[in-house]
Amino acid sequence: MRGLALTAGLLLAGCASAPAEVATTPPPPAAAAPAEAGKPPVPLQYLYGSAEAAIAVRAVNARIAGYGAWRVKERPRDSVVLAPGATMDAPRFEPCGDKPFAAVFDADETLIWNIAPMRLFAEKGGAFDLAVWDQWEKTGAGKAKAMPGTVEMVNALRAAGITVIANTNRSAGNAKGSEDTLRAAGLGEFKHGETLFLMGDDAGGSSKDPRRATIASKYCVIILGGDQLGDFSQQFNVKDLPAAQRMALATGPAATALWDKGWFLFPNPVYGPWQTLGWDDISSTDSEWKPR
Amino acid sequence: MRGLALTAGLLLAGCASAPAEVATTPPPPAAAAPAEAGKPPVPLQYLYGSAEAAIAVRAVNARIAGYGAWRVKERPRDSVVLAPGATMDAPRFEPCGDKPFAAVFDADETLIWNIAPMRLFAEKGGAFDLAVWDQWEKTGAGKAKAMPGTVEMVNALRAAGITVIANTNRSAGNAKGSEDTLRAAGLGEFKHGETLFLMGDDAGGSSKDPRRATIASKYCVIILGGDQLGDFSQQFNVKDLPAAQRMALATGPAATALWDKGWFLFPNPVYGPWQTLGWDDISSTDSEWKPR
Repeated sequence: MRGLALTAGLLLAGCASAPAEVATTPPPPAAAAPAEAGKPPVPLQYLYGSAEAAIAVRAVNARIAGYGAWRVKERPRDSVVLAPGATMDAPRFEPCGDKPFAAVFDADETLIWNIAPMRLFAEKGGAFDLAVWDQWEKTGAGKAKAMPGTVEMVNALRAAGITVIANTNRSAGNAKGSEDTLRAAGLGEFKHGETLFLMGDDAGGSSKDPRRATIASKYCVIILGGDQLGDFSQQFNVKDLPAAQRMALATGPAATALWDKGWFLFPNPVYGPWQTLGWDDISSTDSEWKPR
Repeated sequence: MRGLALTAGLLLAGCASAPAEVATTPPPPAAAAPAEAGKPPVPLQYLYGSAEAAIAVRAVNARIAGYGAWRVKERPRDSVVLAPGATMDAPRFEPCGDKPFAAVFDADETLIWNIAPMRLFAEKGGAFDLAVWDQWEKTGAGKAKAMPGTVEMVNALRAAGITVIANTNRSAGNAKGSEDTLRAAGLGEFKHGETLFLMGDDAGGSSKDPRRATIASKYCVIILGGDQLGDFSQQFNVKDLPAAQRMALATGPAATALWDKGWFLFPNPVYGPWQTLGWDDISSTDSEWKPR
């Protein structure tokens, strides 16, 4: 792995073994240096500032609200939480029974934007600072803003009788700070252990699968929302999973049947598990080109 | 404006007055420096490499194909091209009459990904190089790849009787290179002046509005696709338009009625007109925060 700059991104993403790998590698060069002196880095300009990204985020939120209102009337038999051991190659889902409906969301860059700490990291050369992030979880309430259209979305889901639950890799030790943060962002009440699940709640570490199972034992989960594939299933974060295989799992027929039909993905080019990708993962020899 | 690094991005985006501003500013510091030595810059890792972005792009393409097949059966009265002078505040659209159907797309980072030149720019410190880009337009055929799901999308639209047209700010002088590029990407035939419209085709310069009017005089345009707001209307690119006003126009009720219902936006955090945004555009004083 490549040191601190990716550590927390990988922890937030739920990538297997991220903690064990932290101690063995030196810190990387500055990550995500600003595109221009005094300006935000390019991905922050796009996600946090552009009308283009706001349109995309609002559209995801609108799709979730519309889907939720429709789905509850269907009285579905299956949730959208994969059963333990099921994979995209042979998907099986937790059954709904007559459990009450729920929608389960990641928090960071899924319900709220964390612009203030991302700015501090950028201004110090780009590296993610776990100590600063820990402070942010404790004291950032009121400074983290709901994403465009998110307040309307959660309100619409609740009005349709769907319990809104957050499943986030924020730390269980900072539960009150995260409850306060979501409330101050206008997203209502989230109660640790009932509608807020955190890293440290169980032995799963950064994997969200065990917490999803806990939630699915009480609720018929009809919506999963996130910005990274670990927000949907830990199978996408298996250690040393080749990028091409991750791509195949995530874009194959079973996944395609779920995207926008129960699984909802928000754009996040600011950080993510894909920050390990190299040029060989992006372009192949048959697309090499040089000018004359 | 801030020199070469943004120039071509703004030209491709159709921003008013970009050419006149090139000569008056010094080159900026290196833009979009790699997040880590030897790795692609973060926005390229995300867009060109991540499963997350591939999912989003495939989903846009699937929505376009589904919408097109549905819309042609509606025999709509209005196109989705704004009538001359109409704005999002008071939208009016070019009427369809009994014109044949068309879907009009930008090309770069809307139909195809231009990974090879973006890699060269990144490896040289980030600045967009107009001379290299010009060579790419001329000789890049076979190296520019169709985006995920795009071949299927254009095939589906054509099968539904919808003419697929490209309206791009690639240069009219390189028409053959761009025709070859789209064909080699598996996207079929585009013929300059009929189904391929380029910068230099008329007196509008980098504005796509006059070309859209030309297309709309012959076709009932039921789909517009792009990665930047200028791909939909030049009103979003008015010189010195404040960021907050651009946001309001793009996310207000009239635009919201169009996004995913005729206007389809692809994610592109690699370049765009939003690269002029500063920290003040992204965060306000009420979201400032510092750790203890």
